[in-house]
Amino acid sequence: MTTSALTGFTLSVDDLDAAAAWYGDSFGLTTAGRFGLEPYQLEGVVLGSDAGWTLELLHRTGSTGRDRVAHPLDAALLRGLAGVQVDVDDLDATLSRLETAGATVLMPAHPGPSGMSAFVADPEGNVIRLRDPHAPTPPPPPGAPGAPA
Amino acid sequence: MTTSALTGFTLSVDDLDAAAAWYGDSFGLTTAGRFGLEPYQLEGVVLGSDAGWTLELLHRTGSTGRDRVAHPLDAALLRGLAGVQVDVDDLDATLSRLETAGATVLMPAHPGPSGMSAFVADPEGNVIRLRDPHAPTPPPPPGAPGAPA
Repeated sequence: MTTSALTGFTLSVDDLDAAAAWYGDSFGLTTAGRFGLEPYQLEGVVLGSDAGWTLELLHRTGSTGRDRVAHPLDAALLRGLAGVQVDVDDLDATLSRLETAGATVLMPAHPGPSGMSAFVADPEGNVIRLRDPHAPTPPPPPGAPGAPA
Repeated sequence: MTTSALTGFTLSVDDLDAAAAWYGDSFGLTTAGRFGLEPYQLEGVVLGSDAGWTLELLHRTGSTGRDRVAHPLDAALLRGLAGVQVDVDDLDATLSRLETAGATVLMPAHPGPSGMSAFVADPEGNVIRLRDPHAPTPPPPPGAPGAPA
């Protein structure tokens, strides 16, 4: 039996300190370490969560940006990693807090296969699906599939 | 107190079925659903782990590829998501298995801040850090910082 756990992701950013502050505040992460790798002209910050996951932020001199997306699915137009999913306790409060801190709401809260979800872009445009797996989903509107007769 | 959990990532791929099979076999994931979104010329497969994380694979018509990297840190040359970290039980066995299944080892097993790590690229070139947080790390070579006198 193969077992595996998703425990982190790496993000290449333009502004390392701003990203470290934003992700720290947004998701309750604390700085676990900083490093520099001179041969790669690279600096990094590692943030850790009490829940056991890790965010590695890298800034590499000469890195190029990519197009910002207006819709979460537009991130799929460039093959590769297109987003991460972060579970939170209170989706509405988190959305409001992140937007105040510079996130862009790409898709407001909506019912998903498990709980409620929303999509935001971080201040540099990276796509994050926020999910509250325990949030009750609203009933479908009258006449919609699944609605009471 | 902000709590958050990393519970998934999204990958835009060229070959949806091949990617679903590869990630399923590699990390013990099972297919939870398939979907199509015609207006976006997009198909998707959702894979789930018993450990509670989710991989969303998307194939969007007209998506463009990105350069393969020879070194994990080269993924940072394009800003945005540059890799994910997956914890496994037996790093050496996993590396061997994934390589047989078409992965490229970008960096062999080496001691990290917690356990042993290695970097692979999946068959389409996406960077994954494999980590066995419980693996004993070898002692430093004689004369290296931290080596016994």
